[in-house]
Amino acid sequence: MTCSVAQCLEVVGEWWSMLIVRDAFLGVTRFDQFQARLGISRNVLQQRLSHLVDHGVMVKTAYSQHPVRYDYRLTDNGLDLWPVLNAMRQWGDAHAAPHGPPLQIRHRQCGQLTHAVQTCGYCGQPLRAADVVAVPGPGAGPVQSGSS
Amino acid sequence: MTCSVAQCLEVVGEWWSMLIVRDAFLGVTRFDQFQARLGISRNVLQQRLSHLVDHGVMVKTAYSQHPVRYDYRLTDNGLDLWPVLNAMRQWGDAHAAPHGPPLQIRHRQCGQLTHAVQTCGYCGQPLRAADVVAVPGPGAGPVQSGSS
Repeated sequence: MTCSVAQCLEVVGEWWSMLIVRDAFLGVTRFDQFQARLGISRNVLQQRLSHLVDHGVMVKTAYSQHPVRYDYRLTDNGLDLWPVLNAMRQWGDAHAAPHGPPLQIRHRQCGQLTHAVQTCGYCGQPLRAADVVAVPGPGAGPVQSGSS
Repeated sequence: MTCSVAQCLEVVGEWWSMLIVRDAFLGVTRFDQFQARLGISRNVLQQRLSHLVDHGVMVKTAYSQHPVRYDYRLTDNGLDLWPVLNAMRQWGDAHAAPHGPPLQIRHRQCGQLTHAVQTCGYCGQPLRAADVVAVPGPGAGPVQSGSS
């Protein structure tokens, strides 16, 4: 399917994958830490981590040789998932957090507790769904232009 | 799990759900249209649509009584998923679109082909992963504050 949303889902759309990415953003690097926090089977966790490594979202590096053990860290490609993760978090805060946000973000530069606002990369004004029109891009195949 | 990312995934984390939401943003409303575009079984599509309706992301309205047929449309809650969808699209464009973006967005107000930039809701500067620190929020339970 020629669609960048679908391509993103191919990489992080399996259940648990975005929660692994979330924990990686919070500083988790070790298999056992991921497993303890997520409470999933070692088998499923290993599959998800391998998928993320295979798709360039995480990189694994040996931190011990006897026995061989690995750290899992986000690549630049993985760090680019932050807007996806943050948008999910903000949606959950708005619609499924009756006791208030479990986690907030502080902007290092201005020091304030904040949230992300999507703005137009061209004019800088806020960008919402109703403000944009979808048009076929250069990667739209001749038959897929309406199905992206 | 007290985590707004997990809450978002509870609603739209099943495979296909975000593609249904994507198509709804592109104007698809009818069951048969979703089914033809996504190429999934009617059974799975019905399950996913019902889940989205049950969680307030979509609303179904009868547009025909004999036989009874329904339109599926995004609620305000569902329209709020646009930043998630758009962030996924932009990630896919950046990392998995070798022939260029299949779809682009034009900002109605300024008229330009554009992309969304996440900015600080407080100071307006660009907001990237490295610019923020996660801190426990009011909804962090006493034992979950480190696991959101």
